[in-house]
Amino acid sequence: MRKLNSYFNIRFSDGKLTFIDQRKLPFSEEYITTGDYKVIAEAIKNLAIRGAPAIGVAAAYGLALSVQQDDDPGKFEDAFYTLINTRPTAVNLSYALKRVKKACENSTSIYQSAIAEAGKIFEEDVIMCDKMAENGIVIFGDSPKTVLTHCNTGKLAVAGEGTAFAVIKFAFSKGLVNMVYADETRPLLQGSRLTAFELSKNNIPFKIINDSSAAWVMKNKKVDLVITGADRIASNGDSANKIGTYSLAILCKHHNIPFYIAAPSSTIDINTGTGKQIIIEERDSSEITSVSGKGVTLSEYEVFNPAFDVTPAQLISGIITESGLFTFPYNFK
Amino acid sequence: MRKLNSYFNIRFSDGKLTFIDQRKLPFSEEYITTGDYKVIAEAIKNLAIRGAPAIGVAAAYGLALSVQQDDDPGKFEDAFYTLINTRPTAVNLSYALKRVKKACENSTSIYQSAIAEAGKIFEEDVIMCDKMAENGIVIFGDSPKTVLTHCNTGKLAVAGEGTAFAVIKFAFSKGLVNMVYADETRPLLQGSRLTAFELSKNNIPFKIINDSSAAWVMKNKKVDLVITGADRIASNGDSANKIGTYSLAILCKHHNIPFYIAAPSSTIDINTGTGKQIIIEERDSSEITSVSGKGVTLSEYEVFNPAFDVTPAQLISGIITESGLFTFPYNFK
Repeated sequence: MRKLNSYFNIRFSDGKLTFIDQRKLPFSEEYITTGDYKVIAEAIKNLAIRGAPAIGVAAAYGLALSVQQDDDPGKFEDAFYTLINTRPTAVNLSYALKRVKKACENSTSIYQSAIAEAGKIFEEDVIMCDKMAENGIVIFGDSPKTVLTHCNTGKLAVAGEGTAFAVIKFAFSKGLVNMVYADETRPLLQGSRLTAFELSKNNIPFKIINDSSAAWVMKNKKVDLVITGADRIASNGDSANKIGTYSLAILCKHHNIPFYIAAPSSTIDINTGTGKQIIIEERDSSEITSVSGKGVTLSEYEVFNPAFDVTPAQLISGIITESGLFTFPYNFK
Repeated sequence: MRKLNSYFNIRFSDGKLTFIDQRKLPFSEEYITTGDYKVIAEAIKNLAIRGAPAIGVAAAYGLALSVQQDDDPGKFEDAFYTLINTRPTAVNLSYALKRVKKACENSTSIYQSAIAEAGKIFEEDVIMCDKMAENGIVIFGDSPKTVLTHCNTGKLAVAGEGTAFAVIKFAFSKGLVNMVYADETRPLLQGSRLTAFELSKNNIPFKIINDSSAAWVMKNKKVDLVITGADRIASNGDSANKIGTYSLAILCKHHNIPFYIAAPSSTIDINTGTGKQIIIEERDSSEITSVSGKGVTLSEYEVFNPAFDVTPAQLISGIITESGLFTFPYNFK
């Protein structure tokens, strides 16, 4: 068995945030250390930092760092708006930023209060991941399962061990995972780049498939369950996640395979009644006309490139949070 | 409106075959002219020539060219086996080669007989494409439709105008197509490279989507019908086509959208009872770990890369051939 290689996603120490540049993975593990919130905002925007919970934690530290030198409330406000506008879909982003902002109200040191709150968000995320993993173990029953997953939901997506990936990893540690099919997850290939990296680091047997192979794999190979993360969950259970998730949920229904989501409850937006209210970010056409920076077709061609889709609650067998395993009809209270 | 730019796929003249190098599209239109069947075999293998009917036509000319100099039956046999082994799934390939071989039995000039038969296969393909287009028009009803398609089925896949693409193109000429969503079609991106090229050349409005967006497009945009080609059809209607087709058929069923296949009857293999008997080609893992020659993840990662899948007949609303529109239960006689 290969040695487990350690890696981390986000760390805060000595007044600086260090994060792995996910755009360079899996070819090289490069870490960026900064005290400048603008660098963090840019990293969230250009996907050097990604994954809804990780974005929240990084933005929280970014907001704190904006006032590290001078505790200037004006700078704090500017940073708040810059950071909150980096990505439109992830609810964790605004959740984390608003928490930090609130913690600083009437504070004598904005920086100290902000950094303490960011630290709390970080720690809570670590604990939530562990609890999700524990709460998710039940879906594996008592015999080893073959799992299919989409996008990246491991350590690279969060501050702790991950969401769906943490569930898989914990189940693997208990002997309950044979093998994982990892969707490559176009357009940005988080599956073939990041999930494969994390599966490999954890010695979990896996195969990468292109996204359109999932149905064929379900029909011809034994897929026992599908589990993904979520970027935003409406109060009725409708779940926004990486484009392709809705497709998987339909394919699961057709093949009678359970489809699960694992996400921290901060992902659940009780102010959003149903998935219809979730705004879906459309990203640049260059993500389709090029791959990893290489043009694959003419950039002038028209493209429709939604970053997320919404899976209706009825197609979701269960939603795993740090509080437990919820099933349809969803009531998260 | 942009001027229609002409392009062709395969032409035979002056004892040489000229074909467009599809690997270079849409960036540059480069044609290769050769009298050497080994160049043709290699082109089929490395996908410079692709699309089931085009492979058949090119292989037929290749087989003829193998004896252009000397009418040597030994060389003819060698070429037959080299050509038939270039791609395992496409039934057109063995159909065309066997036809040419048969036409040369007891012939005084193998070359003359072979080239005449290859020419017949070419001409038949042109006529078949036109007939498919005519037979397919009925699926559009009398109002303009939004169509989704997968892979490439146009002029670049055949000798004539195409299969599914010819149907779309003819319907567009009658004012019955608003817009086409073209799946990019990983791993080799025939959709974003070739179908987009052909749609653009024909001034048909289109948008490229990544394959996993199809479900979301079906749910949120008006998709009236899906039409694809097929590489091999069993006698019960089960149809092997580019990986991702089976997935689309399930998604169509879920969204109550008709799913059609257009393919010449040479694609129908009456000796194959059901899709279970169709051998699915697995291609190299590098098609997944790299895109257009650029590595996107570590080449050491394990991959499952089926080139095709099989869509069960029950999920297919209709199969359009040059003989007509067939519906389930399929009886092609």
